[in-house]
Amino acid sequence: MLLILASKSPRRAQILEQLGVEFRIELPDCDENIHDISIENIPRELAKRKAFDVSAKFKEAFVLGSDTLVFCENEFLGKPKDKDEAFEMLKKLRNRVHKVISGVALCKNGECLFAGESQTEVRFRNYSDSEILNYIQTMEYADKAGAYGAQGKGARFIESINGCFYNVMGLPIAATLEAIGKIE
Amino acid sequence: MLLILASKSPRRAQILEQLGVEFRIELPDCDENIHDISIENIPRELAKRKAFDVSAKFKEAFVLGSDTLVFCENEFLGKPKDKDEAFEMLKKLRNRVHKVISGVALCKNGECLFAGESQTEVRFRNYSDSEILNYIQTMEYADKAGAYGAQGKGARFIESINGCFYNVMGLPIAATLEAIGKIE
Repeated sequence: MLLILASKSPRRAQILEQLGVEFRIELPDCDENIHDISIENIPRELAKRKAFDVSAKFKEAFVLGSDTLVFCENEFLGKPKDKDEAFEMLKKLRNRVHKVISGVALCKNGECLFAGESQTEVRFRNYSDSEILNYIQTMEYADKAGAYGAQGKGARFIESINGCFYNVMGLPIAATLEAIGKIE
Repeated sequence: MLLILASKSPRRAQILEQLGVEFRIELPDCDENIHDISIENIPRELAKRKAFDVSAKFKEAFVLGSDTLVFCENEFLGKPKDKDEAFEMLKKLRNRVHKVISGVALCKNGECLFAGESQTEVRFRNYSDSEILNYIQTMEYADKAGAYGAQGKGARFIESINGCFYNVMGLPIAATLEAIGKIE
């Protein structure tokens, strides 16, 4: 059987490897604008869209799609466009709890075999402005929603989490194993 | 200033590096038998003993000690001595919540400047016996209390955590930053 990961995120690929799963990567190309749906359901819907898109091109393959959103007090935090925006995001997250929601979907030949999601609450420490500035200099924030990497130097901001840690990195373990279980 | 990590754990060293801290390693040699103290306080007490021991040999240095205990329903889970014991531990942890408690202490010249601890609850999935057997073959369990590595292939067992993820790896981030903050 052939498994394709429909994501360009190196962190998702790393987590799948950690699970001992064999796969290759194909990038999805789909509309990521979504309306008329509650926030909690958006990552799952986008995961399905990504998996469907790649599945349409590789009909013999099982395709795993995933999408991760970070939000704090109902405001989405995407990838910061520059250092100033990263600074503002990390100031906003300071001494607060925010949520990370990831959706996971498995498709084959136009059919969705699994779709689920995972939600993790992340509590940030009450760090100083200079901690933020030191972190931003590492440029780690650049390709990360919420402007931090939980698996890298951004770990210093996290006081505690409630949920799956790997979800914060981009791919929730239990939901992914459940999806992959549909193959076997 | 010179910081010494009083631990042979490669995972603790990795987390300190991740925090951007400069240090070197010296191994403590102290009695780890403890009585007449509640379970929650044991890791902190052992962290202090380790830091004091190394501090006595390197009087000019700040010394960081740490100790991590895993327990499930008031039973300690140490490092498994063989594959059979690892199998039994992972069966015991299945579909249950267990606790990981780490103590952190900072000493200099016979004085304890900081001592604290961090507690993380870890919920394991309801995995199969064959998942355990496949995992044990990787030998990852060998040097790990509780017979799993949260940062490695053992991630597959974890459904969710409540607390600091890095605590489960062996060194809680917030307590460590608080300890190191006493130096500056």
